[in-house]
Amino acid sequence: MIKKLLFTPGPTPIPPEALLAMAQPIDYHRSDAAVTLIKDVLEKLKHVFQTENDVLFLTSSGTGAMEGAVANLLAREDKVIVIRSGKFGERWSEICTAYGIEVLPIDVTWGASVEPEAVEALLTEHPDVKAIFATLCETSTGALHDIEALAGLTRVRPTLLVVDAVSALAADDLQMDNWGVDVVVSCSQKGLMTPPGLAFAALNQRAWDAVTCSDLPKYYFDFRKAHQSGLEGSVPYTPAVTLLAALQCALNRLCAEGIRNTIARHNRLAVATRSAIKALGFSLFAASPANTLTSIRLPSEIDGKAFINLMRDTYGVTYAGGQSQLSGKIVRIAHLGWMDENDVVVAISAFERGLHAIGYEVPLGAGVTAAQEVFRKEN
Amino acid sequence: MIKKLLFTPGPTPIPPEALLAMAQPIDYHRSDAAVTLIKDVLEKLKHVFQTENDVLFLTSSGTGAMEGAVANLLAREDKVIVIRSGKFGERWSEICTAYGIEVLPIDVTWGASVEPEAVEALLTEHPDVKAIFATLCETSTGALHDIEALAGLTRVRPTLLVVDAVSALAADDLQMDNWGVDVVVSCSQKGLMTPPGLAFAALNQRAWDAVTCSDLPKYYFDFRKAHQSGLEGSVPYTPAVTLLAALQCALNRLCAEGIRNTIARHNRLAVATRSAIKALGFSLFAASPANTLTSIRLPSEIDGKAFINLMRDTYGVTYAGGQSQLSGKIVRIAHLGWMDENDVVVAISAFERGLHAIGYEVPLGAGVTAAQEVFRKEN
Repeated sequence: MIKKLLFTPGPTPIPPEALLAMAQPIDYHRSDAAVTLIKDVLEKLKHVFQTENDVLFLTSSGTGAMEGAVANLLAREDKVIVIRSGKFGERWSEICTAYGIEVLPIDVTWGASVEPEAVEALLTEHPDVKAIFATLCETSTGALHDIEALAGLTRVRPTLLVVDAVSALAADDLQMDNWGVDVVVSCSQKGLMTPPGLAFAALNQRAWDAVTCSDLPKYYFDFRKAHQSGLEGSVPYTPAVTLLAALQCALNRLCAEGIRNTIARHNRLAVATRSAIKALGFSLFAASPANTLTSIRLPSEIDGKAFINLMRDTYGVTYAGGQSQLSGKIVRIAHLGWMDENDVVVAISAFERGLHAIGYEVPLGAGVTAAQEVFRKEN
Repeated sequence: MIKKLLFTPGPTPIPPEALLAMAQPIDYHRSDAAVTLIKDVLEKLKHVFQTENDVLFLTSSGTGAMEGAVANLLAREDKVIVIRSGKFGERWSEICTAYGIEVLPIDVTWGASVEPEAVEALLTEHPDVKAIFATLCETSTGALHDIEALAGLTRVRPTLLVVDAVSALAADDLQMDNWGVDVVVSCSQKGLMTPPGLAFAALNQRAWDAVTCSDLPKYYFDFRKAHQSGLEGSVPYTPAVTLLAALQCALNRLCAEGIRNTIARHNRLAVATRSAIKALGFSLFAASPANTLTSIRLPSEIDGKAFINLMRDTYGVTYAGGQSQLSGKIVRIAHLGWMDENDVVVAISAFERGLHAIGYEVPLGAGVTAAQEVFRKEN
């Protein structure tokens, strides 16, 4: 008997009451109960987004909200800056290019985070840039970007700051209103502890003003329709009602914990994981690691893909491997969503046993001990 | 104690094993099990689509697959025919217009079905039309369109036939390959007995050839990416994995029944419902009614909205009302998906009691009797 545990940066484990909410007989999405549910969910999302702006939702993966941000905010002749430090920064670039938007890329070595000075220099050179597309946590590398610093640049300029918080929302801090971030997009299957299939976007007034000037084609991802419907507890198209029911359960947990505490919990889990990994003699891949996940650089004698399969099949523990150029070279352990200290102990101890199983010597127990030291200190 | 029963044309009731499949601990979408699940689901969908063409899936409402069809098949200078006989025909038109495509509309009175001769005349006048966008069952009116006749026109011409089978798939016959339909789109929450959040498209070779000429912007709804990934049991973006698990359960039922039997069952339920409605002195709104749902024209003394609320709150039975210009004027009873003869008896008998409750005299039991006569004959 092996219990399966997911340490992937999405989907993340779902709390039991959210699982059971999905198993209830399905409701009509135009019922009074559905209207109340949608309004409640959208109100509670504001707390998680740390904003007074309305949050809108779409039935899609997070990429749908990213595409929506491009298609709703930009016009044909616009020029944008895209920060590319991994697969998801590249995705912003691909979407903009698909819509014929001129992209000024800032390419950052994978694992590093963008230097705000580099962004400022490019902005000064191109003051007519309509928007900067950035990533809070670059999930492919585990690197956290300094969104507060970027917002400091954009909020005194006409340029919009659009942040992909797909994986990091509720795990890493993102104070939309306090920092002056214009657009935040995210989705259900990460920090929000809900299965994949819902995406979200929050826009401030500057962003809504840009929407009125957009001439790019859009229909299903039309933010104005989604926003207006949402205010009335309605939807333009049949939404994923079972996922909304699960989301409500998850948001009840998050609101009870409080977003500041939720972020602090993720930070504690992340610090413990990093400490454990270092105690085992490994190095972190990200220079400024996020709370969302920990990326571990593998020595060349370890076959990353085979190791991840072994961990899943033998220890029931699913980590994520590297993507694109990092395939086989890193292991990514997410401590994201419905996760507590015991989960981190399991993730680390299994990592130790797995390494022993492939003949890679580490001081057995050193990782777990280091993690426990952090938890003891923090409590 | 009131049991809630959904007779809406989406979402439709979910079989219990599909509900419970969603309550299982969530799986990683890149696991071997997920690969097997995706391949299995896509294979079984071919049976339901009555095609040897590959079926692709998207995480979105059905409208996402409709938009995908427009964005993937067409190029900027294309001209298309859209058959508009209700809200969903109009949606094709709205999507095409959003992408700057020239639309030649064929407007049909709501409740009626298109005359193939009218389509042929317009095609002859405009032989350069790239595609015809049609609807199998116009859900807003309950009207069935003669897709076989339309396919007879397009398969001997370069024009593509794109069919919205969102509500009618598995309920009304649509022989994609035998009739020569080029593109069929549908979604999860209707005949497929799965919650909303998944959309599907099947394209034949002629349609794939058109995709290579398309220059409209697309990213999330890129059919080639979805198609190629699906063949490998993969996805370009995190899919709604809980909904895929439910879909597999539902498809197991559909494949065990066999699509021809499934359509025959829906026909039997529809014939019984129509017979019952007529026996109660009401008339059908649709001239050529679909198996998917029955639209009932209400006499002016009945307030449709109040009646639907009464039915839901007092009898636990949720019908759908009229949309747009039909608001308050019709009642729509779906007999769609996980439905059997007993469900129809419940829908009809509650209808009879509801009418009595509002003081509208009908011969109590006449509807149920008429339905039973049909079921007896058919068995």
